[in-house]
Amino acid sequence: MKHLNIGLFGYGTVGRGIAQVISRAKNAHAGIGRICVRNLAKHTADTDHPELFTDNADDIFNDPNINLIVEVIDNAEAAWEIVRRALVNGMPVVTGNKAMVARHLPELIELQREHGTPLLYDASSCGSIPVIRNLEEYYDNDLLLEVKGILNGSTNYILSRVFDHGEDYAAALAKAQELGFAESDPSFDIDGLDALFKLIIITVHAVGTYVPPEKIFTYGIGHIHESDIRYAREKGVKIKLVAQVVKISETQFTMFVMPEFVSPSKYIYSVDDEYNGVVIRGECYDRQFMFGKGAGALPTASSILSDIMALRHDYRYEYKKMSYIDRPEYTDDVLLRIYARYTGTNLPALLPTVHVHEQYISKESNYIVADIRLRDLIECRAILDAPDVFIANIPQFFIDKDN
Amino acid sequence: MKHLNIGLFGYGTVGRGIAQVISRAKNAHAGIGRICVRNLAKHTADTDHPELFTDNADDIFNDPNINLIVEVIDNAEAAWEIVRRALVNGMPVVTGNKAMVARHLPELIELQREHGTPLLYDASSCGSIPVIRNLEEYYDNDLLLEVKGILNGSTNYILSRVFDHGEDYAAALAKAQELGFAESDPSFDIDGLDALFKLIIITVHAVGTYVPPEKIFTYGIGHIHESDIRYAREKGVKIKLVAQVVKISETQFTMFVMPEFVSPSKYIYSVDDEYNGVVIRGECYDRQFMFGKGAGALPTASSILSDIMALRHDYRYEYKKMSYIDRPEYTDDVLLRIYARYTGTNLPALLPTVHVHEQYISKESNYIVADIRLRDLIECRAILDAPDVFIANIPQFFIDKDN
Repeated sequence: MKHLNIGLFGYGTVGRGIAQVISRAKNAHAGIGRICVRNLAKHTADTDHPELFTDNADDIFNDPNINLIVEVIDNAEAAWEIVRRALVNGMPVVTGNKAMVARHLPELIELQREHGTPLLYDASSCGSIPVIRNLEEYYDNDLLLEVKGILNGSTNYILSRVFDHGEDYAAALAKAQELGFAESDPSFDIDGLDALFKLIIITVHAVGTYVPPEKIFTYGIGHIHESDIRYAREKGVKIKLVAQVVKISETQFTMFVMPEFVSPSKYIYSVDDEYNGVVIRGECYDRQFMFGKGAGALPTASSILSDIMALRHDYRYEYKKMSYIDRPEYTDDVLLRIYARYTGTNLPALLPTVHVHEQYISKESNYIVADIRLRDLIECRAILDAPDVFIANIPQFFIDKDN
Repeated sequence: MKHLNIGLFGYGTVGRGIAQVISRAKNAHAGIGRICVRNLAKHTADTDHPELFTDNADDIFNDPNINLIVEVIDNAEAAWEIVRRALVNGMPVVTGNKAMVARHLPELIELQREHGTPLLYDASSCGSIPVIRNLEEYYDNDLLLEVKGILNGSTNYILSRVFDHGEDYAAALAKAQELGFAESDPSFDIDGLDALFKLIIITVHAVGTYVPPEKIFTYGIGHIHESDIRYAREKGVKIKLVAQVVKISETQFTMFVMPEFVSPSKYIYSVDDEYNGVVIRGECYDRQFMFGKGAGALPTASSILSDIMALRHDYRYEYKKMSYIDRPEYTDDVLLRIYARYTGTNLPALLPTVHVHEQYISKESNYIVADIRLRDLIECRAILDAPDVFIANIPQFFIDKDN
C-alpha cells in the first residue's frame, strides 16, 4: 500500500489535531512529510522535529516525496493560492477552508476537471459530520427537498449558554473563544458568515447549483437582546442560528442564514452547545437527521483524515447534480414571516412588509411579527444592520409545519 | 447516460415502493424492465402493465436488456439463489434482504471478488439511514470505537406505544403489522433477529470482521411485562431494543442485541416510534448520531434507489477494513450488568452471576440486578427463554458512562 506523505499547510489548532489523529490511525499508512507555517520560529522552538517545518511553500511543492497536500491555514486568499497551485501541479488536496471553497468553488471545480486532480473538503462543512459526502453520494437523486441545520458550533455554543444557562452574551463569546470553538475573528461566526459559506458548499452538493455569497441573505446573532430571549422563552421556543436550502418547486429553490425560533418538536431544538445538526428532507425518506461535533481540533482533524483516506481510494467529488438537465434555480422571491425587534429605528415604516400580524410597543423595546419577501430583506440590509434591530425567522410559510 | 433497465425480484410493499420511487426520480435514468413474482395471477390482475410480470427467473436472467438486478423478496434462501446467480452471471445486484446478507456475507464477498460484480445492500440496514456507506467510506480508519443503535423499527414502535402511550403489547404489535412496520413473521422483529442481522452487516463494515449469527447473544422483547415497564419508569429510563458492536481493546470487540435501560441523556432515548437511530463513536470525533426512518416502503425504497444510483457510478464496497493487519477479534468474554426479572424460574440459583447487587422479591414478580459474563448469558439461553423471564442490559461496564 502506497504511503501517503503529506505536505501540511498550517499548524494551528486544526493542524496540530491532524498530526495527532494521523499518528493514532495506524492503518492509514500516512505521515506528515513537511509542514509550512508563516512564523517558523514560533513552531520550531518547542518541537522534537524542527526539520519538518518550513516557511517556504516551494519546499513542499518541489519535494518529489510529497504526494498529498493538506491545507488548514486561516487566511482564505493564501489558501486559494496554495490549493490552486497544488491542483495545477497535479497534487491531490484536502482542505478545511470553508471561506475559500465557498468563494472559489466554480474555479475549483474547473481546476479539478482541467488537471484531473481531486480536491476534497468534507471537513469544511460541519466538522466531523459527513454531510457533503452523503449529499454527493447517497442523496444523489432529485427527491431531495431541503437541507436545514445548525452549521456553526460557536454561535450555537453562545446561544446555548445565553439561552439555557442565563449567561451574559459577552461572557459566553469569551468562553467560546477560550475553548477554541470560535474563529480568531469572531464576526466570522457571529455575523453568520461561517454558516453561509458552509451552506453554499452544501447547496452545490444538494441541488447542483452554485450561488455566490453576496446573493444570499445572511443575518447573525450579534444584535440579540434580553428582550428577544424573553420573547422566545415565553413562546416555548429557542433561538438558533439556522442555515437552510429549500426547494420551493420543481424548478426553484431558496436559501438563507438567519436566527430562527425553533420549537421543541424539531430535531434541531436539541442540538446544543458546540454541536452541529443537519436535517435532510426528501420526498420518500422524510427526514434524516445527522448530529455531531462541528467544531474543535480533533473532530475537524478526523474529518480531514476521512478525506485523506478517501483520496487513497481514488475518491473524488463528481458534482453529478451540476450536470442534471433540470437543475432548480435560486430565487429570493419567497415570503417569510419574521419577528423584528427595534427601539429607535422605525421598522414598521421602513420595512416593505406584506402584512403585519402583530405589533408590540413598550418603553423598553418594540417588535412586529410580519410577512416580508426575502428579496426585500436583502434590499433592507442597511436598516436591519442598525444596532437596535434584531430579526428572526418564524418558520411556517413555504416550509411545511412539521419541519 | 446509460439507461438502467432493472430486473426486479419481489413486488410486495418494498417492491411497489421501488417502482414508485424510480418513477419519481427523473434524473435516475432508470426503469423497471421486468418483475419476477411468485404468484403471477395476484399481480397481473390489477396492473396496466401485465407484460412486465413473470414467475420465471429465467425471463430476467436471459433478457439481454436487463443490466441490473434488484432483489426484495421475503424468502432469504430464495434471495440467496437469485443474488448468487446474478453475481456469477456478472449482473450487478442491489438487495434489501438483511437475513440473506448476514448469513452469506463471506460467500457474497468472495463471489463479488471472483466475478468482479458488485453487490450493494445499504437498504438492508436501517432503511433510509446511510449507515453502511458511511462506515465503509467515511469512518474508514481505526479510530472507530463503537456503533450502537436502535436498528429495528417495529420493536421500537411497539415499545414506544407500550411505554409512552400505555398501550397493550398485543394491540401495539397488531398496529405495527397493520402499518407495515413489522415483518410478516413478527418473531423476526420481536426476538431481535432483524436487529441481529443488521448488526452483523454493520460490524463487517465497522471493524472488518464477520461474526456468524449463532455466535452472538440476541435477546428480544417478547417477554416484556408490566413490571419491567414500571421498574424502568421508576428509574426514569426507557427500555429500548439496542444492538451494539464495541471495541473493548485494541485487539478485541464484542457485540450483542438485547433490551437496554436507556437514560434521557443518551441520544437514542429520543428515538421513538418506527424510527432508527445509530450512534457512531470514535476516538477523535466523539459521537456521531444518525437518525431517520428505518422501516416502511418508501424509506427502504429510497435507500435502494441510492444503491442503484451508486452502481451507475461504479461504486462498490471495497471491504477495506477486512484487509487491515490489526483487525480486532470478536470476544464474548466481557462482563455485563443486567436486570433479570422472573416469577417461577429460580434465576438467582440458575444464572452463574459474578455478583448480585440487588434482589427484589414480591408476590407478583422478582428481579435481580447482577453482573454476569456475556459468555454465560449465551450458555444460559434456554433458561432465559422461559416465558416468565425477561432481561435487560444496564449499560455501564466496559462502556464508558457517558455513552
